[in-house]
Amino acid sequence: MPYVNIKITREGATAEQKRRLIEGATRLLVEVLGKNPATTVVVIDEVDTDNWGIDGIPVTERRRSEKQQPN
Amino acid sequence: MPYVNIKITREGATAEQKRRLIEGATRLLVEVLGKNPATTVVVIDEVDTDNWGIDGIPVTERRRSEKQQPN
Amino acid sequence: MPYVNIKITREGATAEQKRRLIEGATRLLVEVLGKNPATTVVVIDEVDTDNWGIDGIPVTERRRSEKQQPN
Amino acid sequence: MPYVNIKITREGATAEQKRRLIEGATRLLVEVLGKNPATTVVVIDEVDTDNWGIDGIPVTERRRSEKQQPN
Amino acid sequence: MPYVNIKITREGATAEQKRRLIEGATRLLVEVLGKNPATTVVVIDEVDTDNWGIDGIPVTERRRSEKQQPN
Amino acid sequence: MPYVNIKITREGATAEQKRRLIEGATRLLVEVLGKNPATTVVVIDEVDTDNWGIDGIPVTERRRSEKQQPN
Repeated sequence: MPYVNIKITREGATAEQKRRLIEGATRLLVEVLGKNPATTVVVIDEVDTDNWGIDGIPVTERRRSEKQQPN
Repeated sequence: MPYVNIKITREGATAEQKRRLIEGATRLLVEVLGKNPATTVVVIDEVDTDNWGIDGIPVTERRRSEKQQPN
Repeated sequence: MPYVNIKITREGATAEQKRRLIEGATRLLVEVLGKNPATTVVVIDEVDTDNWGIDGIPVTERRRSEKQQPN
Repeated sequence: MPYVNIKITREGATAEQKRRLIEGATRLLVEVLGKNPATTVVVIDEVDTDNWGIDGIPVTERRRSEKQQPN
Repeated sequence: MPYVNIKITREGATAEQKRRLIEGATRLLVEVLGKNPATTVVVIDEVDTDNWGIDGIPVTERRRSEKQQPN
Repeated sequence: MPYVNIKITREGATAEQKRRLIEGATRLLVEVLGKNPATTVVVIDEVDTDNWGIDGIPVTERRRSEKQQPN
């Protein structure tokens, strides 16, 4: 009965991509720890880039200067 | 000074229902542990059904096939 | 399939008290929102009083000066 | 590589105020514990006042009776 | 720069199993969303079975009656 | 009434350092948003280095190869 919470910036993840995150996280718990998928919960939080900071600055600012890099 | 976080799928909970969750969770902490309600915080997160998974699939899909069951 | 997280200071809650928190929180979600108890998860975190602050000071210090009050 | 989560009620915090929260929380971890800012993450959650309770009532109701006080 | 939190009951997960959870969750975010692994954080919380409830009862009790089933 | 959660690896933070985190985080919310310190809660989680991963590997392993760098 694990609980997995995935927090990502809100930058256009599709329903299909979120479905794959849910499926993949559930399978990971089944494969590594033998957990029961029927009671494995995955919750995805999408956070506005103004509300997510790294290195002391919001992702909104970071994106302006490094658009070409992965995130 | 407990902190209670309730995560539910966003499926139309009303302000009145959320008021009852806040009231009930606070009373529970007072009754069971003698906590001070004045510093008991309850935060409710409503999560899109695309972003909540159980048994490896999003609730959005689950709802399609089991509309008649409780959740 | 709600998820409830209850954070309290680690100050001697018994297994029986925690059982009552789990039971009460689950019943609350069933009564207010008609949720399915079989997939309702409750997780209790007990936090050391050095690691919990309110009003800018750790609960450890707060307890010294207000031992007689509820919390 | 600390992770800081700040939850506040959604009551009009500006992008600039959120930038200052991110900057300040990151600096705090650097100054107090010598953490590396480059891997320090700050996530701000803004929560509707219907979904945040204290003293057993939603902030929405609380605001009606105490508009003049700080929160 | 995603943040993943995995909560499981404390029932003997080994350091190697936790290493595989960290590796697998990170790879999932890279594969599905193209995230940068260098700033992807995974935190595993192991929770005592007295402190985790499902269906209104602590896992400690549940384990007694269903030892043979997966979890 | 903000709620701040600070997660750090368990690597010997002292009670005094944690007191400074609590004090600093509370002051930050007061200064930036005018929040009331009396209802501002700070919770610090210290996480074992086996249970914290970045770049796909546990901090335990990372520490072996980079002992001299800040974290």
